[in-house]
Amino acid sequence: MRAETSSHRVGARPHPIRIGLLGCGTVGTGVVKLLRANAAAFERRLGAPLELAAVADRSLKPNPSLGISSKLITRDSAAMVSRADLDIIVELFGGERPARDLILKALATGKDVVTANKALLAAHGEEIFHAADKAGRAVGFEASVGGGIPIIRTLREALAGDRQRAVYGIVNGTCNYILTTMSERGVEFAEVLSEAQKIGLAEADPSLDIDGHDAAHKLCLLAALAFGVMIKPSQVYTEGIGSITQQDIAYARELGFTIKLLAIAKDEDDGIEARVQPTMIPKKHLLAEVGGAFNAIYIHGEALGSTMYFGRGAGEMPTATAVMADIVEIARNRIAAPDGARSHPLGLPIDEVKRGRVKPMDDVVCEYYLRFMAPDKPGVLGVIASVLGRHGISIASVIQQERNSEVTVPVIMRTHEARERNLKRALAQIRQSRVVKQAPVFIRIEERL
Amino acid sequence: MRAETSSHRVGARPHPIRIGLLGCGTVGTGVVKLLRANAAAFERRLGAPLELAAVADRSLKPNPSLGISSKLITRDSAAMVSRADLDIIVELFGGERPARDLILKALATGKDVVTANKALLAAHGEEIFHAADKAGRAVGFEASVGGGIPIIRTLREALAGDRQRAVYGIVNGTCNYILTTMSERGVEFAEVLSEAQKIGLAEADPSLDIDGHDAAHKLCLLAALAFGVMIKPSQVYTEGIGSITQQDIAYARELGFTIKLLAIAKDEDDGIEARVQPTMIPKKHLLAEVGGAFNAIYIHGEALGSTMYFGRGAGEMPTATAVMADIVEIARNRIAAPDGARSHPLGLPIDEVKRGRVKPMDDVVCEYYLRFMAPDKPGVLGVIASVLGRHGISIASVIQQERNSEVTVPVIMRTHEARERNLKRALAQIRQSRVVKQAPVFIRIEERL
Repeated sequence: MRAETSSHRVGARPHPIRIGLLGCGTVGTGVVKLLRANAAAFERRLGAPLELAAVADRSLKPNPSLGISSKLITRDSAAMVSRADLDIIVELFGGERPARDLILKALATGKDVVTANKALLAAHGEEIFHAADKAGRAVGFEASVGGGIPIIRTLREALAGDRQRAVYGIVNGTCNYILTTMSERGVEFAEVLSEAQKIGLAEADPSLDIDGHDAAHKLCLLAALAFGVMIKPSQVYTEGIGSITQQDIAYARELGFTIKLLAIAKDEDDGIEARVQPTMIPKKHLLAEVGGAFNAIYIHGEALGSTMYFGRGAGEMPTATAVMADIVEIARNRIAAPDGARSHPLGLPIDEVKRGRVKPMDDVVCEYYLRFMAPDKPGVLGVIASVLGRHGISIASVIQQERNSEVTVPVIMRTHEARERNLKRALAQIRQSRVVKQAPVFIRIEERL
Repeated sequence: MRAETSSHRVGARPHPIRIGLLGCGTVGTGVVKLLRANAAAFERRLGAPLELAAVADRSLKPNPSLGISSKLITRDSAAMVSRADLDIIVELFGGERPARDLILKALATGKDVVTANKALLAAHGEEIFHAADKAGRAVGFEASVGGGIPIIRTLREALAGDRQRAVYGIVNGTCNYILTTMSERGVEFAEVLSEAQKIGLAEADPSLDIDGHDAAHKLCLLAALAFGVMIKPSQVYTEGIGSITQQDIAYARELGFTIKLLAIAKDEDDGIEARVQPTMIPKKHLLAEVGGAFNAIYIHGEALGSTMYFGRGAGEMPTATAVMADIVEIARNRIAAPDGARSHPLGLPIDEVKRGRVKPMDDVVCEYYLRFMAPDKPGVLGVIASVLGRHGISIASVIQQERNSEVTVPVIMRTHEARERNLKRALAQIRQSRVVKQAPVFIRIEERL
């Protein structure tokens, strides 16, 4: 009787959904672990099992405890993505080649695709999303931004009833860890970076993170989902955190601010603003409380107002959960309608997505924190203030402490809203006037986010 | 030429998705506004327009500026939900009757349903979800918990790759507003409640909110999505905020805590914990920073770790955006596969959802804050401590200030983890011993959330 029931069940069981994995490093291993640990739950949910059917990884050895037998492993990734017996290709190679070609091939041969590759999508997203729409297949990329935070499907689905106005993201855990540690422990950038490298929170070559490029890649995807426009990383004004000092962190605190590396995109009447930069935000703001390697994305919608999404932005298992969410969704759709059209990767047909007009940085208007190093003598403040005034920049507050023992003292100012072009001209003129001893420092303020 | 193009377009245009609205009060009006304001965006996204086709509301008058003509309005909601020319029924009546019957009728006659009705779903969710699965139709209920925060689809879809362990929600804006204001302004509960009623943040009869019942309804839905179990509001231990005093808020602060009304569900080895209660949480925790009428849901997943979702939990437009997100998703699925199976309302077939075994409150283990009012004389502390000790409750810290001018002084204790049953027995015995002047106060602590 038991055998009958069991064989009946097996007979009635739908075809498993077969997954091919490109790359089995940190995140790939996490995905394999989740496929095993939650196999029964996935089958209950979907009515069919998820099966790891192929793994392309040059250096992978069979791992029976993870269920990776030698017959699953291949070195020929091009052959793998063309196989007719796979349903979903999960691309975790990273980088642009061969990832781009493999994804296009997988889509063209009827597979749905899941990827965590933000650099690829920022550079070739339009091409890949076009190919997906043409093939009627899905491209899931939840893991590409914010690790385990479900920000991609939130923007694509959950906020689809509203019009988004602004996105503010802490999307690089390395930078957030460095800035948080600098702020909490009073240690300078170089020292914290070197510590972060030792504990594996920063790469040996950290420039992709600390110079803001990784955040700029992610911002392109966030802007595409939020506003329905494609922008390129080269259009994102990008500034890293390497020049942030303890001095500026201390003055920020005195003025009521915390410094965070923010990826900011705004949909304004005269174009899209897209910038990655160290930003002073009110220290009481929820984003300012996001510490360590955590990520958070703060979104302002016209009807909804502000929402925030917080969690781990990287790591084996958090990122793997995002990949798994895409796999489960795609598997469900394949089972419900094997040949049915998929949701568009950006939520709307790629033909409806516009090339975004990005506002030149010079046209951006914001408030500024300024630090001048000047001799401690009368008249300096007057010179600075009058140059700023001539450029239409008005001063909201000044901190100038008497420090008799020093020849050079900091003059700290917070401005009202000013246009970036005017600010830069004023600072150049102040520099030339020689009342200051070094190039003025400025950090943008976002007070009303 | 223009006429030809236009008529060609109309010809090629897919059938609009026709929406019937049950109830056009605050949230319904918000939905109508969004349908108008973002009509072009919805059509671009879906390839077909969303059309408001019928509104059932007893007191509604035609409103041309909202596009509500007299021919859209009906009083016969039973006839409306049976109409063959509607695709989606949006239920915003609230309450159990006639909402339940109308939703069941709508599902049985091929409509998909969107509802914001948490009280209905907490009481009759199982029946409604069964009916939806049987009819192969969808029930969207994003607006039922957390207003505009997309917590329903996050639990159903985004976290589907992981196993959830615990959910901690600030899901009642009225209570959070009252507690935040009490904490910031030092005013007692009754006064803040009366202010909140004046500004419309609390109902004339506030008991559904302040006694925790609304949060308990929402917790049932969160637990169903997080753990795949159905629990009833009557199984949720529910305690309101009416007995919170300035005294306890001040001592909480001294111990490093903030008091929040939390809806807590945990999936533990020996059953589900489900409780709504004033809770002391570390004042540095992100949830403690969620002030005013805002909501936030903090989730702990096995692989993902902690994530948090923050936003406006109520109000016309925030709640309407959640309804609209469900409408857009359902419309997309109707267009892609008109007769295709829908996603299950809880993410997995209702037959796979278990009746949850809810742990009796007496078996719950946590840390406690205790306040005893006792005469300021020697020996009191000894009596209290030894009764606690006999019940296996160990004390983590004590605050007892000398206050010579008063006859009765507060003795404040924080315990280590203890079982609720033991704590209650100990407190009863202390009360009987007459060393204390009134019933001891206890508030549960969640330190490691």
